[in-house]
Order: sequence, then C-alpha cells, then structure tokens
Amino acid sequence: MYQSSESLGRLVSLLSRLPGVGRKTAGRLAFHILKINQEDARDLAEAILAVKEKVGNCTICCNISEHDPCAVCNDEKRDRSMICVVEEASDIVALEKAEDFNPLYHVLNGRLSPLDGIGPDDLNIKQLLARLDGSIKEVIVATNPDVEGEATAMYLNKLIGPFGVKVTRIARGLPVGGDLEYADGVTITRALQGRQEL
Amino acid sequence: MYQSSESLGRLVSLLSRLPGVGRKTAGRLAFHILKINQEDARDLAEAILAVKEKVGNCTICCNISEHDPCAVCNDEKRDRSMICVVEEASDIVALEKAEDFNPLYHVLNGRLSPLDGIGPDDLNIKQLLARLDGSIKEVIVATNPDVEGEATAMYLNKLIGPFGVKVTRIARGLPVGGDLEYADGVTITRALQGRQEL
Repeated sequence: MYQSSESLGRLVSLLSRLPGVGRKTAGRLAFHILKINQEDARDLAEAILAVKEKVGNCTICCNISEHDPCAVCNDEKRDRSMICVVEEASDIVALEKAEDFNPLYHVLNGRLSPLDGIGPDDLNIKQLLARLDGSIKEVIVATNPDVEGEATAMYLNKLIGPFGVKVTRIARGLPVGGDLEYADGVTITRALQGRQEL
Repeated sequence: MYQSSESLGRLVSLLSRLPGVGRKTAGRLAFHILKINQEDARDLAEAILAVKEKVGNCTICCNISEHDPCAVCNDEKRDRSMICVVEEASDIVALEKAEDFNPLYHVLNGRLSPLDGIGPDDLNIKQLLARLDGSIKEVIVATNPDVEGEATAMYLNKLIGPFGVKVTRIARGLPVGGDLEYADGVTITRALQGRQEL
C-alpha cells in the first residue's frame, strides 16, 4: 500500500490496535494528529505516559487510583458497611451515576471464565474476603448480567456466606424507558421473577 | 462526575477531541491504554511525537513527507507529464488504490470555501502554477465531488487554462457495485451526462 511517511504508517498501525479502531479510523486519527499543533500533540503523548506512570491500584479495593488508599476508600462520607463488587474499574464510573448510592467498591479485575482460563485465583477475591472484618453488613455483587457475570456472583455468594454478611445481586429486568415488545424472553422472565409490590 | 484519577480524566478529555471520538469512546480508549503494558503505551506516545517531528511537507507537491522532495516527486517511474490535484494528503492514499494511474500529485491543503473564509491565497495554488513549466501536459482535478470541490475545480480550470495545459476533472457517476435504485438524482444526471460509447 502507498504510504507517504514511515512514521505516519507506524502511528496508524499503533492506533489501529486500540479497541474499536480499524485501519480507516486509525488513518483518520493519524492525519488529524498530523494537523493539530505541536503542543496539543505533546499534551496527548504526555497524557498517555502520565496515565501509565501515575495510575496504580488501591491496595484495599483494587480500583485504579493515583493514591493509595484511593479517594473512595478514604472518603468518610461513604456508607462503610456496604461493598459493591464490580468486574472492572470502568464499571464504577457507571454505578456512580446512580442516585442515593454511596458504597465502598471492590474491583475483581475480571470475571470467572473457565473457557479463557480465568479462575478464582486470577481475580481480586482474596482481597475482598480480607475486607469482611465485621464492619461490612452487605456485599452487592454488580458483575455484568451475562453468563460469566452470574457465575461469578454465585461463586462469591457461596464464598461470602460463611462470613455472616448479606450478599445481594443487582436486579435484572427491563431497562427504564425500554419497551416490553422488544425485550428478550430471559429479561422478561427476570423482570417477572423480580416483581415487587406497589 | 465521578473520576477515579486526574490523569485518566485528562487523557479522556484529550482523546475526546479526536474526530469521531465522543466521551464514551474516549473513556473506553483510556481504560484500554491503562491496561496495555508500559512499552506499548510508550510506543504510542512516541509515535504521536515522531509524526509531528519528522513529517513535514514536500516543497514541490505540498504532500506530507519525511523527505524533501517527497518519494513521489523523486520517483522517476511516475508519469511526469501529469499532475493530479487533491484537497488533502489523505486523498492520495485513496487515489493510489487506482490501477494504471501513476501521476505526480499536488496537495491544495483545503478547498475554496468563502463561508469558512478560505480563499485562493490559503491554498497551495501558487506552488501548483509554478510547476506548469511546459513538461506538464495534463492537470487532473480530483477535488471532492461536492459544492466546494466543484467550485475549486472551476477556479483552477480558469487559472490553468492560459498555460496551455489540458485540465480534466474526475468523472462523477454511479459507484461501481452501486444500485441505480438508491442513487440520488444529481448523481444519475452526472452519470448520464458523462455517458460514453461502448
């Protein structure tokens, strides 16, 4: 293929490794970077390096953080009797959008997936159990509502039960603003099973 | 909004300035960069800087290039009697996919667009005229087939005419593999106007 510059070609090939970025998008991004001014390009390059240098993990909740313990674990205004367990740090961003929800978190860094060779020892489960020192009254398992996420939730439930802590699972049902007509059977089944008195 | 790390937030905001990248995509990319290993992140950052440092413009054709003159202008195997004029350097990548087409190029770096305040002096037109030294027999105007692209083509035609050089315009018509049923009226009109004997 025609290539006007080797360094441009290299940038395209590196950008196309990013998730959801194909060769065409990578080309468009690379040409854009070529057009922006020097400082903006430097800012972007430095931000990429800064993220790798500064961001580590909180030793308590395993969330990504620049400080240890992280801001959530240090936040005295949080409900410190509740741990919400998520698969990935990015899930916390989504959960923080909820109203009246102010728990501590715990990031598993994945989910049980025997097909991919991911077992309990590959997840931050030991660290979670270490936090169940009596002050925690409830563990909310907010893994994704798919096969692996459910299996991980079941596994955690079995593991945490002996600690005398309530283990709950986020509700599965129809998304707000959704349409019964377009919902799949499994979701409707779950919505009916989880029905609540008005 | 909840933010687990300042440097991650900064990376997200810089990435979301890229074309076609919204805040959600930027977040996904940033979390990906956080997960890849240090070397890959450094490679990406360095590739961004390298592109800004190394890539300049060819003083002959104004195409982006790491060398001056660029590889195309230096290529003795090119048809040196033909200049194909394009709006952007990225258009050359597309044109080089054509078969049996081996011209020199000239990058205008934009198109006439009075509404955006872009006039003839903002484009690399002077450099194009300077190349019409008698060795050039044909100038193919391959600006985009939209209003501004057509206006730019008309303008160039008027300007180049006095040099005694043939000025041609790429054909507009139905894309190969396209469907008459879904073609718009203007395209069909152009396809009929441009009909050729079999």
